[in-house]
Amino acid sequence: MASSYNHVAGQSVERLAALSDGIFGVGMTLLVLDLRTPALEAVRGEHGLWGALAGILPQLVMYMMSFITLGIFWVGQQTQLNLLERSDRHLTWINLGFLFSVTLLPFSTKLLAEYYPYRAALLAYWFNIVLLGGSLYASWGYAVRHRLLRADTPADVPAAVCGRIRTAQALYAFGALLCLVDTRISIGFIVLVQLEFALAPRFRPRRSPIPTPSQTLDP
Amino acid sequence: MASSYNHVAGQSVERLAALSDGIFGVGMTLLVLDLRTPALEAVRGEHGLWGALAGILPQLVMYMMSFITLGIFWVGQQTQLNLLERSDRHLTWINLGFLFSVTLLPFSTKLLAEYYPYRAALLAYWFNIVLLGGSLYASWGYAVRHRLLRADTPADVPAAVCGRIRTAQALYAFGALLCLVDTRISIGFIVLVQLEFALAPRFRPRRSPIPTPSQTLDP
Amino acid sequence: MASSYNHVAGQSVERLAALSDGIFGVGMTLLVLDLRTPALEAVRGEHGLWGALAGILPQLVMYMMSFITLGIFWVGQQTQLNLLERSDRHLTWINLGFLFSVTLLPFSTKLLAEYYPYRAALLAYWFNIVLLGGSLYASWGYAVRHRLLRADTPADVPAAVCGRIRTAQALYAFGALLCLVDTRISIGFIVLVQLEFALAPRFRPRRSPIPTPSQTLDP
Amino acid sequence: MASSYNHVAGQSVERLAALSDGIFGVGMTLLVLDLRTPALEAVRGEHGLWGALAGILPQLVMYMMSFITLGIFWVGQQTQLNLLERSDRHLTWINLGFLFSVTLLPFSTKLLAEYYPYRAALLAYWFNIVLLGGSLYASWGYAVRHRLLRADTPADVPAAVCGRIRTAQALYAFGALLCLVDTRISIGFIVLVQLEFALAPRFRPRRSPIPTPSQTLDP
Repeated sequence: MASSYNHVAGQSVERLAALSDGIFGVGMTLLVLDLRTPALEAVRGEHGLWGALAGILPQLVMYMMSFITLGIFWVGQQTQLNLLERSDRHLTWINLGFLFSVTLLPFSTKLLAEYYPYRAALLAYWFNIVLLGGSLYASWGYAVRHRLLRADTPADVPAAVCGRIRTAQALYAFGALLCLVDTRISIGFIVLVQLEFALAPRFRPRRSPIPTPSQTLDP
Repeated sequence: MASSYNHVAGQSVERLAALSDGIFGVGMTLLVLDLRTPALEAVRGEHGLWGALAGILPQLVMYMMSFITLGIFWVGQQTQLNLLERSDRHLTWINLGFLFSVTLLPFSTKLLAEYYPYRAALLAYWFNIVLLGGSLYASWGYAVRHRLLRADTPADVPAAVCGRIRTAQALYAFGALLCLVDTRISIGFIVLVQLEFALAPRFRPRRSPIPTPSQTLDP
Repeated sequence: MASSYNHVAGQSVERLAALSDGIFGVGMTLLVLDLRTPALEAVRGEHGLWGALAGILPQLVMYMMSFITLGIFWVGQQTQLNLLERSDRHLTWINLGFLFSVTLLPFSTKLLAEYYPYRAALLAYWFNIVLLGGSLYASWGYAVRHRLLRADTPADVPAAVCGRIRTAQALYAFGALLCLVDTRISIGFIVLVQLEFALAPRFRPRRSPIPTPSQTLDP
Repeated sequence: MASSYNHVAGQSVERLAALSDGIFGVGMTLLVLDLRTPALEAVRGEHGLWGALAGILPQLVMYMMSFITLGIFWVGQQTQLNLLERSDRHLTWINLGFLFSVTLLPFSTKLLAEYYPYRAALLAYWFNIVLLGGSLYASWGYAVRHRLLRADTPADVPAAVCGRIRTAQALYAFGALLCLVDTRISIGFIVLVQLEFALAPRFRPRRSPIPTPSQTLDP
């Protein structure tokens, strides 16, 4: 009976995607909830409000970085789920572990924002990123090994996904190590890695009006 | 490897739409969370409660305006996504930037509600609207340039979408400029622009029971 | 240009449904957030905790009633959206108005819970229900008039939906009127109407193992 | 008219799934919101922060257990909904009851975390699990009796689902009974049952590169 249940449990990739979007959506919105408007009694005149807003700026930058981190892992998980033919019970639980790490990120971000000169805060933040990357890596490995990928997945994609996660985690680990010198150098390095992963062009943007063969082959 | 990853990453318009709906849904609900019921000890008798409720009214109107702003941009993004054949990594990140601006709106609304006589508050609110409109404009431009639109998109729609965003942003910018006179005139003007975009009929409502050709052509 | 934009804007019923599910999901979850665990210092021994939990019970019942109210309107809107072939800009905005009333419900529920002996609180709560029912009614009327329904909609359904909303609103209005006698009678009556709409069987549950023709005709 | 309305109301399994994902997503994210970063003034030096973080650990473990509980019931409901051909009004309301119990879980978890030596807290937590399991059981029974399952549901699955819920509830009830000895033994036992349901392999993981017939038959 148990085996028969396990064959039908947790097979829906759509439901997993929907739950993930819900959790990411709430997490991304809550990050900004902590931004407080300046206290009315503390602000004197137009000048005072500009000053108070400038005082909020570092906090805003910090939340933007968290949003980008969540964005990076959202795109990463989305790419995996799009390539799945179906899910199963075990893959679902690996992804629930990933989502648990996602819900922790607002906490570790706030911790790092408040205690940025402390190595403990930096290592806690880094540990969160290791959990995120590690569970995505485990999820992909499991999907490949158990043949859950769509038949039309390009042959070089499985290795590309693994390589990408390994490279990112190696860079994050190096960034964390830099805290032996100074935690601010660590944070700066990690931020650069994230911006590179989120924003840097990895190939020349295609602006030619004539589609190339590879474009037309895109699903 | 990177190029192969980028070909499969971020292609799902459905996932982007689902994340957007999650973020808009949370944002729209959180706006009203700040409405507090009157303190029990401050209310004396039926009359007192009516008075307390009347005191909440301006706050309620403010949140309604925010809800309408979010609604306008939700409809705007939805219209774009509906016309996309597929997404790609870069378009996904442009839209994540748009969603980041969405999460900021509850903050800048609260700021404006508390500091409405201050130009700094008005300009911060206007800057948020510029971010929203600017990222939607960039998203559409990118989609058109990289041929991500559905083949059945009517030929005049791309220009119509751009024109609409440009007109709205020009009106908002004019409204912001009015703060040189008085911030309250600015706010009034911006509210009128939003109501016009949200509610005003742009063509005579079709009440005829016989469908016109254009109606039957609607997808 | 505006007309061409309006033809493609807001047509996705799926997106509207997804936004609605997000807003209802957040609203339903937030209702229970106000339940506070008893303060540690106030509780003495096993007996004290049972007492403290019993003290929370009325609050719990109140939130259950709100959850049921949200459930009733969620089912009502869902039924409408399922019957739509497509949406348009105006229908989308009517539904955004409906969703705005949904986000107000946690507030008016808390108001009623705290001020139940006051007519002002009861009328505010009733006004919220009028907004919910009224916008659903407007949404349905618009969809019928503009032929947005699916072709396979049973012929008697449009009138049935209208009739159902009218009956419910008449009963709610009568309940609100009862506050001239006593607000508690009003609340009791409204709760009964809601339970009847949510839970009472409207036809004998079909337990026969042989499907009747009407069942097989169900889409 | 009522009967005709009931035939079309609440039929969408997709909408029910989307609402469920929204509620689970919010619930899973809110659990971690209560994690507070240590107060700045209480932390002295690197050592102090490590100590403060270690102090948060039990709370973190507690929330992880709640996340797993929500995960177990999310997988359970998902499995049911995936097997449904369609829903109806009554099944929808049974599932809304299930979702109401889901929204209560963060409250009963916090109660248990704060009052773990009290039987009242343990029994309240257990009652919540009974509500969750009971509503899932009722939902499945209703779906089977009213022939709402998909035609391709394997013949042994209906009994497997029922058996699984019954076994789990029997184990939870036994765990709750253990509170006659000591509530901590109860909690330990319930945690073991949950880990077993969430994580323990129920059949040898299939690592063979050649798909077995049953695998290829998986939908």
